[in-house]
Formats: sequence, structure tokens, C-alpha cells
Amino acid sequence: MPNRPLNVAVVGATGAVGVEMIKTLEKRNFPVKNLRLLASSRSAGKQAQFNGQNYTIEELTHDSFKDIDVALFSAGGSISKEFAPSAVKAGAVVVDNSSCFRMDPTVPLVVPEVNPADIKQHNGIIANPTCTTIIMLVAVKPLYDIYPVKRINVCTYQSASGAGAKGMFELIEQTKTVLAGGKAEPKVFKWPYAFNVFSHNTDIGENGYNTEEMKMVNETKKIMHDDGIGVCATCVRVPVLRSHAESITLEFKDNVTVEAALEAWKKAPGLTIVDDRAANHFPMPCESNEQYNVLAGRIRYNLAAPNSLTFFVCGDQLLKGAALNAVQIAELM
Amino acid sequence: MPNRPLNVAVVGATGAVGVEMIKTLEKRNFPVKNLRLLASSRSAGKQAQFNGQNYTIEELTHDSFKDIDVALFSAGGSISKEFAPSAVKAGAVVVDNSSCFRMDPTVPLVVPEVNPADIKQHNGIIANPTCTTIIMLVAVKPLYDIYPVKRINVCTYQSASGAGAKGMFELIEQTKTVLAGGKAEPKVFKWPYAFNVFSHNTDIGENGYNTEEMKMVNETKKIMHDDGIGVCATCVRVPVLRSHAESITLEFKDNVTVEAALEAWKKAPGLTIVDDRAANHFPMPCESNEQYNVLAGRIRYNLAAPNSLTFFVCGDQLLKGAALNAVQIAELM
Repeated sequence: MPNRPLNVAVVGATGAVGVEMIKTLEKRNFPVKNLRLLASSRSAGKQAQFNGQNYTIEELTHDSFKDIDVALFSAGGSISKEFAPSAVKAGAVVVDNSSCFRMDPTVPLVVPEVNPADIKQHNGIIANPTCTTIIMLVAVKPLYDIYPVKRINVCTYQSASGAGAKGMFELIEQTKTVLAGGKAEPKVFKWPYAFNVFSHNTDIGENGYNTEEMKMVNETKKIMHDDGIGVCATCVRVPVLRSHAESITLEFKDNVTVEAALEAWKKAPGLTIVDDRAANHFPMPCESNEQYNVLAGRIRYNLAAPNSLTFFVCGDQLLKGAALNAVQIAELM
Repeated sequence: MPNRPLNVAVVGATGAVGVEMIKTLEKRNFPVKNLRLLASSRSAGKQAQFNGQNYTIEELTHDSFKDIDVALFSAGGSISKEFAPSAVKAGAVVVDNSSCFRMDPTVPLVVPEVNPADIKQHNGIIANPTCTTIIMLVAVKPLYDIYPVKRINVCTYQSASGAGAKGMFELIEQTKTVLAGGKAEPKVFKWPYAFNVFSHNTDIGENGYNTEEMKMVNETKKIMHDDGIGVCATCVRVPVLRSHAESITLEFKDNVTVEAALEAWKKAPGLTIVDDRAANHFPMPCESNEQYNVLAGRIRYNLAAPNSLTFFVCGDQLLKGAALNAVQIAELM
């Protein structure tokens, strides 16, 4: 934790992640001196609560960052690109939840449980990785420390919250419509979401991978400081509200036993093992929702390959996938 | 198609799959001379329609199979175990949708698009594979024919219908309850289903794999006549009503190009390619529901391994995953 109270700004304070950032600062007793809540002019004037006090949302401008020590950004890539430099210029350290600076070689990309030391390298901006990458690496890192990982195969079961509050609203409203006998009318997402599953709604590149998948590929190499890790990702949306699940198969450079993996997970920060075979109890969104820790379990040997384990993880997309990770970074500064 | 009209019995005629079997016999103009609809005493006396005629559901007994040529069973493993021998004794050929006889070495396990010739080896019973295996292999077989497959990594996104009509009902009713602000009260499944994802509801064996996953492992080897194929399966239920989706990564013995794979799929029976990258249009449950064909697409090179492709499939669990495959077997007899 910082050793003195800080002036904190939250940019995108009315968004799904922004709201969780404010709650997380409060719950974790982050030493806040003054809090400034920033959003677009559309939201300016609205009220929000922090530690029992009312705060008025202010319109984000280039002059919003006077005396701010830490600015938590979660208002999309274009807002970060335009306003983060102003925050840095005003003397603030930016923790950015957008994809804008993640692959910038001068910007550390940090999961506090994985590469906390990278924070020190910052030049004013620290990037928060993609939610799916964060949730995966919290479980992968303790195993990587036993033997390096050669390959990762990951298939995601991603929630609506990755598209913000409007994505969650669309899933709920569309499901109501379909249950009442109506027809799904997609707006936020391209495809029907109620009782459906679809490939992640980001653009597909030349190699056939969508942007979300390539984030997992490239961010993993950067965070793990290992360009040799191969990642094959398939990102899929499922009709779940706020937790992402991921089915992960790792191939190691040598044999990692299930027992050693469980021992490593037991000692790992930010991770709760949920792995009761007799009770068929494994990580589920309904149990990771609103939890800080990533749930990991169903760990077993890959029947098809040597030196390989497969397992399942779940994490709250809005918390460990976004708001919590950002606040944890601020705590380490 | 059989070259003469046959007497057909459907066992489990009121179940989710049984209802689809009757519809499929009608839609595909199967040459039915007489149709006998069988179920438990609870359902006896109920009415069902076939080709515009009313049929009365009869109670299943050991004497139900007199003069029956083909008996399509879909009433669970214990019913198949008890009554299939009576059907065979009466001279019928049984197509069994339960798991009861699938791994019996004297019983062919058949996906008509994959191993139709195996039907000839039958001794009165032919087994219908597990839905997830059928849907996977329709897409895998044409690629296997280019170069043999060494390893399969498959993660499923399975629908409620795999647990029958009661599973679908539970998902719908529970979702209504949750949307109205109530609490999910699981009955058919152990865990909340509305807006949740959970590991498949079958028992977990010593090796950590559940029964559904081991079916995919063992049935694949049997159907493909290749004990060398390694299969690593993760079976997961998602809140979808009647189609299963699967994310599949294949490692081949040599390099199979995406172009060659697409060419092979184009000529493959029972398969429709849905692979429009610009439109982000790939296989989805909402488009495979009530369709006979398996949808396959999102095919691309595995970024993490040589000689490896990854892709996504969807198929109607009640049709290609069960009723259609059974009727297709009957057609080939």
C-alpha cells in the first residue's frame, strides 16, 4: 500500500469497470486523500458514493488531473490515448485498463501476482492486461515456476460484462424477450446472445485469430517475459453476466505432476482451488462472481500428450479481470 | 434407404430424442410400414402424430417387438439393457442411443458419415455414439483422411438437451426465476444453470475425467479404428437449449493446410462450412438448432504447434447428436 494518502482520479467512473474501481478502492481501504470521478459530459453531474460520502461526477477534460497522484482509466482506448498523456503531464501515474498502451514497449503490463517488479519500469503509465489474460496467468504462473511452459491451448467461456454494462443489459433484456416468446434483436453484439454462444466480437486478422485471442497470445509473452511460449486461443462468448471461465491445457518443458501443481496453487496469491471430484465441484461463474480471487481446479493429466496438464479457471471479469487488478497495481506503486 | 417398407418401433417415444426420431422418420420419408411408439406405463395412452396420423403410445414390454424390423431405442441405458435383447430375439435390429452397448466389441458404433461400413458387422444391435463424439467426428474425419490425427484437444459448450426435456425445462424455468429476482433452485443439474457454466454432470473417474469426456476419448478410437489417437476432452455445460458447440484443436502426423482442410470439408457429407471472417460469422447454436448438418468453421493454424489446426463446430444435440444419426443408421441397414 502507498505510505501516504493519495489523490485518486477514476476516468470512466460510471462504466461497469469504473463503478467496481470505486467499490474496490473503498473495500481495500486504499489510502484516498481526494477522489475525483471523471466521465463524459453525458454523465457529468451524476452522483456516486465513496466511503459514505457523495461525489459529483465531473466532465473529463485535459485539465482534470491537477494534483492527482494516481489516475485509473477505464473509458476505452480512444479516451486513454487522448487523456492519459495529460494526466502524466500533470504528474499523475496512470493505470490504464484499455488496450491502448498494453503492447507499448515503454509501458509495463502488470498482473501483480505474476510480474509485480515490472511496475518499477514505468514512465507514467502502467497497463492493465486483458481480462482473459489476467485470469489465465494467475493460475499459470505458479505452474510455470515449476517448469517453463512451452504451449498453452485456451478456450474461453466469456461473459457479457467484457462489453460493459450495456453488454450485460443486452443479455438480460434479450433473454427476457426470448422467454416471453419474442425474437432476439441484437444491438451491442452482432449475434443473438440469449441461449447462444458466439465467437468473440472483435475483428479477425489475416491469420484467422480475433483481436481478443491475439491479446492473449502477445500479452502472455510480454507479462511472462518469455517469447517462446506458444498460445493457441479460442475466445467465445457465453450467456453469463460477469465472470469469465477458461479451459486451459499447458505443455511444460518437463513433467509437472498434478500433486506438485496443486501444492504450487495452494501457496499462490490471488487463487482459490476449487477441485472436489467426488462432489463434481469445480470453478463456476456463479461462485467467482464478485470474488477477488481466481478460482482454479479440475486439474488432471492431458491424456493425449506428455508433460501436459489441463484445468479450468473462473474469474470475475469486472474485478480481477479489470478493476481489482488496476487497484492492486496502484497499491504496489 | 431400405428397399421395402419396414415396421419401426421407437422406444422412449415421448422423450426429447424420441420425439425428434418420429419427426426425422417423417421428414426423411423413411419407408415406414407400421410404426409402434413405446414408452413407460406413465406415458402409455398418450397420443403422437406421424405423417398426419394419430398414434397411441403403448407401454414397453418384452413382447412389444413382434414383427418389428427396426427398433430405435432412446430411453436410457437401463431400458436398453433390459429390452434390446428382447427386440433382437423378436428379429428386430436395434439402433440404440444409450451408452449401454457403445463399447461392446460385438456392437458397431456408427456415425454414417464416418464409418458406415461398420454397420454390416452387427449382431442385432448398432450403437449410436455420444452426441459430442458424433458432432466432433463429422468434422474431424474429412481432415483425418488428408493426414492421420495424432491428438485432439476438445473443449465443449454443451446444451441442456443432453439431459433431455427436463434439462431444457430446468434451464428455461430457472432463467425466468432469476430474471424475476429469484434464486436458482437446481433439481435436474446439481448447480445453478441460468447465466452459469459448469463441468459436465457425469461422475469423475480416478484420472480426473468425467464419464462424458471418457466417452469422447474411447468412442473416437473405436469409430476411427485408431487406438493411437490421443484425446484430451473438457466437457462443460453452457446455458444453451439444444445445440452443442465444440472448440477442437487437431495435431496431424503431417502438415494439413487450411485450404486443404476447407476443400475436404466442402466435399464432406453432413457438414456445412460457416466461416466468414469479415462478417465474424462462425458456427453458433442459434444457427445449428433444428438443422441436420454439423456447422464447422473458424478454421486456422494453431499458433503454438506445427501440423496443427484449430476450429469450431456446432450441431443439434437432439438431431445429429442423437435422433438423426440413429435414423441415418436405420437408412443404411
